Amino acid sequence: MYPGLAKPATMFEKLHSFLNRNSPITDEQFEYIKTLFVPKKVTKGEFILREGEMTKYSVFVASGCLRTYTIDDKGKEHILQFSPENWWTGDMSFKSNVPSQCFIEALEDSEVLLFELHSIQKLNEYIPGGSAFYESALQKSVAAKNQRIVSSLSATAEERYNDFIKKYPSLIQRVPQHMIASYLGITPETLSRIRKQQSHKH
Amino acid sequence: MYPGLAKPATMFEKLHSFLNRNSPITDEQFEYIKTLFVPKKVTKGEFILREGEMTKYSVFVASGCLRTYTIDDKGKEHILQFSPENWWTGDMSFKSNVPSQCFIEALEDSEVLLFELHSIQKLNEYIPGGSAFYESALQKSVAAKNQRIVSSLSATAEERYNDFIKKYPSLIQRVPQHMIASYLGITPETLSRIRKQQSHKH
Repeated sequence: MYPGLAKPATMFEKLHSFLNRNSPITDEQFEYIKTLFVPKKVTKGEFILREGEMTKYSVFVASGCLRTYTIDDKGKEHILQFSPENWWTGDMSFKSNVPSQCFIEALEDSEVLLFELHSIQKLNEYIPGGSAFYESALQKSVAAKNQRIVSSLSATAEERYNDFIKKYPSLIQRVPQHMIASYLGITPETLSRIRKQQSHKH
Repeated sequence: MYPGLAKPATMFEKLHSFLNRNSPITDEQFEYIKTLFVPKKVTKGEFILREGEMTKYSVFVASGCLRTYTIDDKGKEHILQFSPENWWTGDMSFKSNVPSQCFIEALEDSEVLLFELHSIQKLNEYIPGGSAFYESALQKSVAAKNQRIVSSLSATAEERYNDFIKKYPSLIQRVPQHMIASYLGITPETLSRIRKQQSHKH
């Protein structure tokens, strides 16, 4: 469409190709879908959701990286998810009238598209089955969490680290080590020992 | 409606009151919804899904209890979920054309209602937003898994046991102890020790 021109992929183009992977979407349908998303730039350290707030959005990450975390009764922080490019985030446990227990914070300057969850009905009226991407994001989230539960019950610290690399290949260099350790449920010292052992192997 | 008569609650009546808790459903709408569910009795030990099969259904448990488990690379079994009355089950990580990694087995003689996932579109055409119960079940599943991840990262065995009692008050007497231990990621001996300590306290 733009021969010879290196047109930078816009946020919406990234969303379009993501949705197309689920099920083909016509240009006309996508023009409508675009009206339901609000583009937003967030700078490193900025929050798009805080504990106690109502979740209104499901969030498509077009560039950058965010993390979702929660704080337990003892005041300890637990990372539930990292969300680099092409991931969805938001408090997936969204329920009307129940405030979120999560924080979602930008780990890098990021570009996101906010989809208001109350638009699901409008979307389904316009495109029957149009909300399939949201169900699919929820299902992916359930699958990832199942895998993480099994891994936390059975895998060694080293196996969990290897799973992490497979799941988030780009994040090892981008995310602070103490956050990766927190996600894996190990101490930063253990993580550092595993990384040293592996670098000797390669 | 049936003054003086103790009419036993049927499977569909249980479903109706479950759905009504989400959002009110007229009798006429419910007559349509009923056509999308297939009632099934499963006997103790029977499977409604095995690893490698395609997930076709979301499952409402009207009576009895099922468990969802997976087997890891080392051949070890891990229980992902128990599903007593009024819970939904099914491989919530359902994706078209990807075989399930889960087994779903009846722990007791049970009555279930099978909802074919491909009916979601039909349902939404008939009742706009009708599939909200499915999204709500997925969201509940994500919330429960988040809580379990946090608990596996931070809580002591005793705290995890107490969370289990809160989440599944009826199951302590109904489910074999070694399965509860497996769910909690502790040995049956540790579970037995915790239960003994607690019975001394009360």
